[in-house]
Amino acid sequence: MNAGAGVGGAPVGAGGGEQPSAAFDGAATAAAVRAAQRRFGATRWEIRAAVLRRLADLLAAREPALLAANRRDVEAARTSGLAPALLDRLLLSPGKLATLRAGAGQLAAADDPLGTVLRRTRLDDGLELSRVTCPLGVLLVIFESRPDAVIQIGTLALATGNGLLLKGGSEAAHSNRALAACLRDALAAEGQPVEVVTLVEGRAAVAALLAEDGSIDVVIPRGSGELVRGIQAATRIPVLGHAEGVCHLYLDAAAEPAMAAKLAVDGKCDYPAACNATETLLVHRDFLPHLPAVAKQLVDHGVTLRADAEARAALAAAGIEAQPAAADDFGREWGDLTLAVATVADLEAAVDHVHRHGSAHTEAIVTADPRAAERFLAAVDAASVFVNASTRFADGYRYGLGAEVGISTGRLHARGPVGAEGLLTSRWLLRGSGQAAAEYGSGKRPFLHQRLE
Amino acid sequence: MNAGAGVGGAPVGAGGGEQPSAAFDGAATAAAVRAAQRRFGATRWEIRAAVLRRLADLLAAREPALLAANRRDVEAARTSGLAPALLDRLLLSPGKLATLRAGAGQLAAADDPLGTVLRRTRLDDGLELSRVTCPLGVLLVIFESRPDAVIQIGTLALATGNGLLLKGGSEAAHSNRALAACLRDALAAEGQPVEVVTLVEGRAAVAALLAEDGSIDVVIPRGSGELVRGIQAATRIPVLGHAEGVCHLYLDAAAEPAMAAKLAVDGKCDYPAACNATETLLVHRDFLPHLPAVAKQLVDHGVTLRADAEARAALAAAGIEAQPAAADDFGREWGDLTLAVATVADLEAAVDHVHRHGSAHTEAIVTADPRAAERFLAAVDAASVFVNASTRFADGYRYGLGAEVGISTGRLHARGPVGAEGLLTSRWLLRGSGQAAAEYGSGKRPFLHQRLE
Repeated sequence: MNAGAGVGGAPVGAGGGEQPSAAFDGAATAAAVRAAQRRFGATRWEIRAAVLRRLADLLAAREPALLAANRRDVEAARTSGLAPALLDRLLLSPGKLATLRAGAGQLAAADDPLGTVLRRTRLDDGLELSRVTCPLGVLLVIFESRPDAVIQIGTLALATGNGLLLKGGSEAAHSNRALAACLRDALAAEGQPVEVVTLVEGRAAVAALLAEDGSIDVVIPRGSGELVRGIQAATRIPVLGHAEGVCHLYLDAAAEPAMAAKLAVDGKCDYPAACNATETLLVHRDFLPHLPAVAKQLVDHGVTLRADAEARAALAAAGIEAQPAAADDFGREWGDLTLAVATVADLEAAVDHVHRHGSAHTEAIVTADPRAAERFLAAVDAASVFVNASTRFADGYRYGLGAEVGISTGRLHARGPVGAEGLLTSRWLLRGSGQAAAEYGSGKRPFLHQRLE
Repeated sequence: MNAGAGVGGAPVGAGGGEQPSAAFDGAATAAAVRAAQRRFGATRWEIRAAVLRRLADLLAAREPALLAANRRDVEAARTSGLAPALLDRLLLSPGKLATLRAGAGQLAAADDPLGTVLRRTRLDDGLELSRVTCPLGVLLVIFESRPDAVIQIGTLALATGNGLLLKGGSEAAHSNRALAACLRDALAAEGQPVEVVTLVEGRAAVAALLAEDGSIDVVIPRGSGELVRGIQAATRIPVLGHAEGVCHLYLDAAAEPAMAAKLAVDGKCDYPAACNATETLLVHRDFLPHLPAVAKQLVDHGVTLRADAEARAALAAAGIEAQPAAADDFGREWGDLTLAVATVADLEAAVDHVHRHGSAHTEAIVTADPRAAERFLAAVDAASVFVNASTRFADGYRYGLGAEVGISTGRLHARGPVGAEGLLTSRWLLRGSGQAAAEYGSGKRPFLHQRLE
């Protein structure tokens, strides 16, 4: 049994094959996923769990073929001079495959995420309302480089009964096809429609799908800010994710200097390209005497400082040189070992700076003053707000959410790191015994509105 | 103290005044609401509750002025020949004002909706994560006719710490200004920025605001499908609501005929213009012998039937005439006493019909067969799915949600009838003691990920 990877909306052989996609019909492809998802999303948990176990088995049985497909991508990328960091992300190893298998098995062993009763109300005798979790619907996930994302996102989608349109990077084409074929074959093995997972290729396919707001419920772009902004501008479908991560670390007047230095170094240097890296240090004026000690450690880690006049003066007095910050250096996502430094008069000025220049991703304060900590937590309008911890903790794995779908800086539906919960929505189910609405209301039969459980 | 209604982004006298708005600056207006909301949204519950109590007092103290302002609108509308149903919606009565006062008082007496801990996890000793409810942000609510919506939505926004841009119908201009002034004066009386509630007037203002996706988080249109579609097409801001309510009532083979007739009559005739009215009757082929008895009651209530050939034949045999249904009669929101009738081969065909022609609002089955009931509940992809109850029950008040923000047919964030909960989102708060992310991970310190409470 082999359902293929479904490239271009039409199944192709699981071995991949390099034939160019035929003319791509975005409407038909999205509608097919919607129809398949409606069927799959209504299945009992035993079936979805069985699909996940089949997937784990297929990933084990096909390991040599998966590694071979990946080798083709890696060799081509090496020849074309892909950067080493990207090569590393592209590489599938037996270890990575083992982690993916384990993830599928863990989800299969967990409870059904669907049908959870969120609220139950007796409206009247024999008229009971419940709100239950259900699949979000059809997801379009656009990602770069990392082929393991096919399985990570695929297992989450299968567990939650969602439909999945996947578009990976062309540099991982062979790997993606081989992995998507595992997902589709696992579905077919349990008698489920393979269109639940459909891999598409090429930019034209993405452009066509972004117009299908009737059949696709959410777009999840995983990649650069440029990728995300381009997608946001091109579609009416809600986009779950973030274009920018401009995170601040505010060193309060009552910050403990050693802690300030440790968290600044971790926030900036642990992984400067990450969205949760620290981009700007906000320094309370009264902390300026301690700034040189913090800056010394940053400079020792290779950090270039771009500071405002007041901070530069404080640093210069201690013999530490900083570049002058331009106005638009505040609010920049550096992505490297550059760090902006701004002086603020007090905590409220720090909060204002964060609201003006931040991206509502993650904001942190360092302080030994509990009142300052609580005020910062209350006042900052961002997805994640931290006290005395590195901005780098903003991450689904670190939060204990299991697999991470992405990090959302939007306010609706999901905010901050998004796990499987972000792939669910809810429906209202009403079980009656023949009641008409006209029987209820003022002067008629009253509602009980009795909360149950 | 009188902060005015803030028409056109600039405060005007509370008495209203008919001066045309000055050139409207959408960006500045939205940014002012965002800034005010951030301050107001971080206040303690005592302050927000006090604002609500002040509002109730103002509504009582200003009742003669509010009724006088409303009389001006009603008289102008009567002169211009507004339909009686719309006149009724436009009218503010002492009874309606008493209900609005009571609503504000009830919200003030309830618990703080903000800061509720949704999840708490110990990541490590001295590193605790919590997810807490917070305001959604800035809402743009566009409504027609009913001036009481200003206070209904205003009280919900104040309780939940949201900012509110309000655009009402021009026919209710005097009423809306007088009511919005009560909201702003209640804010001012507690030292809060009046810009939290800002009333705007004119289509140009709405068009300008729909471009402010940086400062406005959600648009809530309350009105016709045409209004909603126009707004959806004109903005990138998420729209919470529904353009259409195409609800089906499916009469299963095992439907009890008397119940079928009762629910069809209630669904179609109780309030035909409502979004939760029944628009199409789906009839299992085996139920056709009972269709004439159902149709007889519908016709007696003035309903015009538009039926497919099979249903027409069944009706004709019993001497009941039905118009032939055109293909596009299925999926139409009639808004009047017309009802489409389609024959289906079985439950699965009914579900397919619902998915093809419905608007994912509310779908109902009539059946005495528990297995058919559960299959329908599981298979139908809609915000509300009912067994043996009228589609008219889909409503926030009937669901026991208190005040209703609207009914959403979208899948993200809120689905179905939306109460105060739909005006909330969440933030992640992390309280640490100096932890760096680089200290954790494989081969380093493990996370505890201990769920608390």
